[in-house]
Amino acid sequence: MSELRQDPLHQRWVVIAPERNRRPPTGSVQDSAPRARHGAGDCPFCPGSEALTPPDIRRVESGSSWRIRVFPHREPALGVEGDLEAGSTGLYQYSHGLGAQELVVETPDHDRDWQALEPDEVAQVLATWQLRLRDLYRDGRLEQVTIFKGHGAAAGAPIDHAHSQLLATPFTPTTAKVAYERAIEVWKHARSCLICDLLRQALHDGERVVAADKHSACVTPYASRFPFELRLLPLRHSHDFCDASEAELASMARLLTDACRRLTLALDDPAYNLVLHTAPNPHPLRPHSYEAGLLQHAWHWHLDIFPRLLAPAGHEQATGLYVNPTPPEEAAAFLRGLA
Amino acid sequence: MSELRQDPLHQRWVVIAPERNRRPPTGSVQDSAPRARHGAGDCPFCPGSEALTPPDIRRVESGSSWRIRVFPHREPALGVEGDLEAGSTGLYQYSHGLGAQELVVETPDHDRDWQALEPDEVAQVLATWQLRLRDLYRDGRLEQVTIFKGHGAAAGAPIDHAHSQLLATPFTPTTAKVAYERAIEVWKHARSCLICDLLRQALHDGERVVAADKHSACVTPYASRFPFELRLLPLRHSHDFCDASEAELASMARLLTDACRRLTLALDDPAYNLVLHTAPNPHPLRPHSYEAGLLQHAWHWHLDIFPRLLAPAGHEQATGLYVNPTPPEEAAAFLRGLA
Repeated sequence: MSELRQDPLHQRWVVIAPERNRRPPTGSVQDSAPRARHGAGDCPFCPGSEALTPPDIRRVESGSSWRIRVFPHREPALGVEGDLEAGSTGLYQYSHGLGAQELVVETPDHDRDWQALEPDEVAQVLATWQLRLRDLYRDGRLEQVTIFKGHGAAAGAPIDHAHSQLLATPFTPTTAKVAYERAIEVWKHARSCLICDLLRQALHDGERVVAADKHSACVTPYASRFPFELRLLPLRHSHDFCDASEAELASMARLLTDACRRLTLALDDPAYNLVLHTAPNPHPLRPHSYEAGLLQHAWHWHLDIFPRLLAPAGHEQATGLYVNPTPPEEAAAFLRGLA
Repeated sequence: MSELRQDPLHQRWVVIAPERNRRPPTGSVQDSAPRARHGAGDCPFCPGSEALTPPDIRRVESGSSWRIRVFPHREPALGVEGDLEAGSTGLYQYSHGLGAQELVVETPDHDRDWQALEPDEVAQVLATWQLRLRDLYRDGRLEQVTIFKGHGAAAGAPIDHAHSQLLATPFTPTTAKVAYERAIEVWKHARSCLICDLLRQALHDGERVVAADKHSACVTPYASRFPFELRLLPLRHSHDFCDASEAELASMARLLTDACRRLTLALDDPAYNLVLHTAPNPHPLRPHSYEAGLLQHAWHWHLDIFPRLLAPAGHEQATGLYVNPTPPEEAAAFLRGLA
């Protein structure tokens, strides 16, 4: 059984998951065990190989076949069994590795990722995320669901058939918690959503806007850590991705496929990661370590895309200080200029 | 000129350094521009190639040759020229890219890194760090100096001749600031140094101790993010690495070379990063955004070593949640068991 442990100094949570790799590795895992790359023939996510994965939690049908499948991770770092047994040992907090990890296969077609999917296909993926989020947030033991996706080996995607992941944790991961606390602080001070304010400034300045329609916008963040980093968000204030209307999802899907196509064109099919930042579980029995009720006003859901163009540098992990050679204003202008 | 920008939500600082790469990259930089690997013949850090680097700031001589050289980075992300011009544009904070970046070549011998150096050679490197830290902290414009080192390409080390870097910033990088604020909070609550407390618990339990002598200890942290992560720290409470005595540096150097040798033996010469976490600039003219004066009581300098065994996974960057397959208790037992 895995265990969650909190670093008391940095307040970071770590899953200690020994069953994933019982013995100390000899030799560099990075060198000796390259991630499996599947061709269309031996891919466990392709139609016909459904028996290679756990049974579906959800399936979007299309005629006699499926368009989208959702199933649990075969070797989850966090599992749904048991109560949330949390405690402390001396100065340390821990809990058993409670949570959930699900995979969403986004298309039956092995060779099409978001830049090749039609907007209505991506909209169906987003709608599937909403349904899974709503379902997972019925469980009061879970505090936060993070939804993310990797494209390409440099993004840590072990299988290149288009898919995303849902990771449900019994606490809010540190990155999200820092942002929540900051957003709450701003709201208390100004009675204003910081992310709405930033969006308004971006739209007013115009320099960092890649694309926008009447529901959504795609911008390059002012302090982008990575070249061509993108943020997509709804124009309407909304803390919860589950509240997005059909029209808003359709708009977001159009901007997303457009953004992925522009990145593919500009950077020759780069690896990238995508993360959905939506509010934590509103379950009334869920005690949060921050004023989660205020997030209804203070949070604004959004999607971040990080192209993986540069090999990670030592000092970024060491200091948390990133060096980005491409000003976000230039990245936005370049992407806007593409047909 | 580079620019420092702060992400208002995550409060992360980013250096926007366009002169490093003026044009948007086409193709994956990771694939197309592998980091230069030098042999002993064409290495800019080898004796005889001194003209290929900027002039020395400091040199430790040994007979007619040098043992250690310190010089400025040739293309620093942050430079020492100019005043600290900080301001805000709308909701954003920025400053011009003020700071300093120095390289310490740790040995004239191209093929020897810390696992091959003698403890007295590593002690000289540590003493050189102290001298450079003291000198940089005379400049009230600089708030924090981070010292770090990478070994191996997977650790982002562009040149494989043993060297470390000093990075001086006009603010405290977010990772350090979160830890400072937490340590200050604990000290205010308990009048006790959190890192002293954690060290005492580790020494009492014994399970996570790799090695210790009368001045220093090497432990595996309770919530290690990476397999075989190590922390080395002085037993005596001290917030400032510059205060370490000659005997303490000699002890730390012995434990460091010992730790690097054990890692090399256990993991077949793994890539790793090392970071020194020492207190910020005590310069009286330096305004800090946290109660830096309390760090004298609340902080405890230490060195962290992160072996780079696993390829980065998408969700770690996305969520800040790490999955570590090797329990730190097992890593410590394994390392202790090596002759």
